[in-house]
Amino acid sequence: MRGAVLYGPRDLRFGERETPKIVKPTDVIIRITATCVCGSDLWPYRGIQPIAQPTPMCHEYCGIVEDVGSAVTTVKPGQFVIGSFFASDNTCPNCHVGYQSSCQHAEFVGTAQAPVLRVPLADGTLVPTPEVPSQDLIPNLLTLSDVMGTGWFAADAANVKPGSTAAVVGDGAVGLLAVLSAKQMGAERIIVMSRHESRQKLAREFGATDIVTERGDEGGERIKQLTNGIGADSVLECVGTQQLMMQAIQSTRRGGYVGYVGVPHGVELNGEQLFFAHVHLHGGPAPVRRYLPELIKLVCDRKINPGKVFDMTLPLDQVAQAYRAMDERRAIKTLLRP
Amino acid sequence: MRGAVLYGPRDLRFGERETPKIVKPTDVIIRITATCVCGSDLWPYRGIQPIAQPTPMCHEYCGIVEDVGSAVTTVKPGQFVIGSFFASDNTCPNCHVGYQSSCQHAEFVGTAQAPVLRVPLADGTLVPTPEVPSQDLIPNLLTLSDVMGTGWFAADAANVKPGSTAAVVGDGAVGLLAVLSAKQMGAERIIVMSRHESRQKLAREFGATDIVTERGDEGGERIKQLTNGIGADSVLECVGTQQLMMQAIQSTRRGGYVGYVGVPHGVELNGEQLFFAHVHLHGGPAPVRRYLPELIKLVCDRKINPGKVFDMTLPLDQVAQAYRAMDERRAIKTLLRP
Repeated sequence: MRGAVLYGPRDLRFGERETPKIVKPTDVIIRITATCVCGSDLWPYRGIQPIAQPTPMCHEYCGIVEDVGSAVTTVKPGQFVIGSFFASDNTCPNCHVGYQSSCQHAEFVGTAQAPVLRVPLADGTLVPTPEVPSQDLIPNLLTLSDVMGTGWFAADAANVKPGSTAAVVGDGAVGLLAVLSAKQMGAERIIVMSRHESRQKLAREFGATDIVTERGDEGGERIKQLTNGIGADSVLECVGTQQLMMQAIQSTRRGGYVGYVGVPHGVELNGEQLFFAHVHLHGGPAPVRRYLPELIKLVCDRKINPGKVFDMTLPLDQVAQAYRAMDERRAIKTLLRP
Repeated sequence: MRGAVLYGPRDLRFGERETPKIVKPTDVIIRITATCVCGSDLWPYRGIQPIAQPTPMCHEYCGIVEDVGSAVTTVKPGQFVIGSFFASDNTCPNCHVGYQSSCQHAEFVGTAQAPVLRVPLADGTLVPTPEVPSQDLIPNLLTLSDVMGTGWFAADAANVKPGSTAAVVGDGAVGLLAVLSAKQMGAERIIVMSRHESRQKLAREFGATDIVTERGDEGGERIKQLTNGIGADSVLECVGTQQLMMQAIQSTRRGGYVGYVGVPHGVELNGEQLFFAHVHLHGGPAPVRRYLPELIKLVCDRKINPGKVFDMTLPLDQVAQAYRAMDERRAIKTLLRP
């Protein structure tokens, strides 16, 4: 089969790869219905996170079960399934408390830009939809594999409650879905930082009430102004840079909550500064598996449309173009169809 | 009057100071019944936190109201009162959400090692006891001014719940009272890190179930062993060094809570490490004022005996000796009587 392989900075090719098959009895093979490019794929694509060898890419997927290992009991061929980017057994103590992305047996699923995918620990990882979904639901369901679950975790970790004020740092796909999540959890006011008109528009559609175009300290000051000088109850950090992490902390009210889901790149937090900021801090790789049943229901009941973050769709063999479009910020997020 | 003045590293003198008087209409003057030495006083005493000029010391106090400013309405002369180390108006938005130590008009009360003390923002800061307490309650009540409230905040910030497992990092007075707090909040298992026999004994008396004598990574490993390899639900960091802060994070289970109340000295948190640790982090200067009514009731009902951390009592004029005893770890905490 052919799939995406990264050879070096901005050298992404659609090339020959071995077709995966069952390796362990707990594996499942799925035929990909849709995959996409994740914002975090851009870190190695841009060379910021170096790779040691030619590397298959991406970890967002949904599709139809084709083959199951002998120990698999919860999914069967023909079912449409969604899984997290971290395979998890869903039975270890970390999974038990809802942190499946820290499963003691976690395996990263990183080869999804291909027509066929092997998913390990399938019983603990994959969740089937009630029936094979209609085509128009596919983009929505695909987001649940990572980007929507990650936005949801940001809002959950930031303790968004009915009536609260939330600020979202980052207008990438995760940030935009963090807006949707905050809205869904009842935030009354949702401030989003964005300078891009198309992203502002989608943010408003998802529930944003205020747009802040200033950046850095100025952006933090603007959020304070919008919240009577005290800061937001919840701030959702969806990027992972030093500047934006500090801005998130400074934009939060005393006793408020920072939920951070952007993978930190070079972030160092000064202990004393954090101490006197008096905020709650929680984040990490989103435990997508925890949220899958709830989010699948919201999508299938047509209560949310997270798939709107896909503003470009390409056939899988044009995957290199998909990366270029996101790298150059011409697309928010690109969906790929094998 | 005479009070404690720090002139430089380990140069603490009991010398002449101006007797405080009402400056603003919101001030109160109290006659100190008891004061003490705080662990955080040792940072400047040891020269780790340099001072710019001769500095009056300490911020833990209780006593009898002697004079009130014209705007004061909630306390009156003759009442026994306790206040926090941060004076607060108790009406600003930060106070309103229970973070009085981040009051928008906060003033540090740092001159308590003296017979007489001026407390600003008295209405928002001081809480009177139902009646003038008997002498045996004084040490217990004095702890509520900081050390007990700080241990309580550590347990609260670390989300200690009935049945949970808590680990306490630090066996100073705050650490020991964090043990008492965790016990009071219903922790089933309380692990405390301590190498000092007298402190271990008091920790057990306060409710500790397990003592860990190992330090550093080894100490963290020991806590993991004691918690089936997964870490404690709640870890209470009561020191503020880089090593112990990292140990606290590493001893916490995924999705668990770190409450940190030790003022950080040189602490830098690596964003990526924190991200993958998947913990909740909350702390800062304890909002002692929030807890005062509840803790005064627990003391007056003789439900808790936090005053047991005072294993030395001296007359105020021997304050220099009190510092030496704590600096050399001969005393856990020294109570001073004017």
